[in-house]
Amino acid sequence: MDIFQVEGPLVCTRRIAGLDHVSLRVLRDAKGRRQVATDPVGARAGNHVFTVNGSAARYAQGDFAILTDLTIGGIIDDWDEASKGSSTAAQAAPAAV
Amino acid sequence: MDIFQVEGPLVCTRRIAGLDHVSLRVLRDAKGRRQVATDPVGARAGNHVFTVNGSAARYAQGDFAILTDLTIGGIIDDWDEASKGSSTAAQAAPAAV
Amino acid sequence: MDIFQVEGPLVCTRRIAGLDHVSLRVLRDAKGRRQVATDPVGARAGNHVFTVNGSAARYAQGDFAILTDLTIGGIIDDWDEASKGSSTAAQAAPAAV
Amino acid sequence: MDIFQVEGPLVCTRRIAGLDHVSLRVLRDAKGRRQVATDPVGARAGNHVFTVNGSAARYAQGDFAILTDLTIGGIIDDWDEASKGSSTAAQAAPAAV
Amino acid sequence: MDIFQVEGPLVCTRRIAGLDHVSLRVLRDAKGRRQVATDPVGARAGNHVFTVNGSAARYAQGDFAILTDLTIGGIIDDWDEASKGSSTAAQAAPAAV
Repeated sequence: MDIFQVEGPLVCTRRIAGLDHVSLRVLRDAKGRRQVATDPVGARAGNHVFTVNGSAARYAQGDFAILTDLTIGGIIDDWDEASKGSSTAAQAAPAAV
Repeated sequence: MDIFQVEGPLVCTRRIAGLDHVSLRVLRDAKGRRQVATDPVGARAGNHVFTVNGSAARYAQGDFAILTDLTIGGIIDDWDEASKGSSTAAQAAPAAV
Repeated sequence: MDIFQVEGPLVCTRRIAGLDHVSLRVLRDAKGRRQVATDPVGARAGNHVFTVNGSAARYAQGDFAILTDLTIGGIIDDWDEASKGSSTAAQAAPAAV
Repeated sequence: MDIFQVEGPLVCTRRIAGLDHVSLRVLRDAKGRRQVATDPVGARAGNHVFTVNGSAARYAQGDFAILTDLTIGGIIDDWDEASKGSSTAAQAAPAAV
Repeated sequence: MDIFQVEGPLVCTRRIAGLDHVSLRVLRDAKGRRQVATDPVGARAGNHVFTVNGSAARYAQGDFAILTDLTIGGIIDDWDEASKGSSTAAQAAPAAV
């Protein structure tokens, strides 16, 4: 499961039937790469979330007929970017796995 | 689900039976990496789209017998590259996830 | 689906039963990264092809018992590297997706 | 299966029903990239583990109803970063695969 | 399917039931990235192998109950790193795919 920050909604009028009336969110990972996910938990812009991919994403959405490959699985309580980011990396310092 | 810009059709006479008579599109992501997707929504060159991958791609195409692993899921209404791109990145500024 | 150039056959005497007597090809993508695919279309060295991955790869091979995760889906008619490569990129110029 | 070091628990109050009451761990790979996994083996911060992804992750968790896409498969006994890392790389020296 | 060089066994006493008594190998790709695979063919350190991922990996292992996501599919006969590596790349010289 991946960690992202929610950027905002994705406005998309013309879409396949399997994603009709589903709320889509634009997410961005630590490197700035964007992905689109369905959102069953009601995440807001700025929230840090983790996502479920693959066939589990459809189950996670609560309806297997919804044709997503990425679903928000939960909102992270306090994602402290400072400690989780560069400084923790410096403390733990795993040279190479 | 990933975000791409449609580059154009893929001309491919010799293909497997499971992809016969299916419209194929060449897509390009933010880093210039190309992928090929089937297109049930009628996207045109220049459109920004999002795609569905994995087994959901076959359901998204509307016919599970079509052997795609990537299907265009919808056309994004107004993908403002300026605001979604570098400037939004600058505003939100998630240092590290 | 990904785009590759065929490099040549993969010679592999000792393999699992699920890939016995199957033709394997070494492919290389735009960045020089190699992958191995099964080939139901008869691609030759130098051909540009697109591939199908995941469970669709087994259906694409025409026999679900063949344990591949990547199958050549078709041979691209005329892959003009010059126009598809840097020059098209320059024309379309998607700053950031 | 991928190799990670366990960083710590992921605190996440609001999550989908399919991941209720499941222990989540933040993992970090050799390049510092983070992922979230479910943990049926009881790994602790600092442990080196390997993970199982895809649909196998749900079976690995011991309950297919748990909607994970990444599960810790085992704790590596002695992951010697020095020998497994740069120095082994120097000994084996595979120029290019 | 990906190409790797076998680095050695993975010693892992504490693991999930679905991977009990299975032989695990540490593999390394051309860029030095490590992965762990199950091995039904008996590959030795230094061998170049190709791997099968996803659900096919479980079938490839010969027992669907083994919860792997990566299985060695075969040992490559003569992987000539010099010709397959930089020199072939120089000859074929695909500018951009």
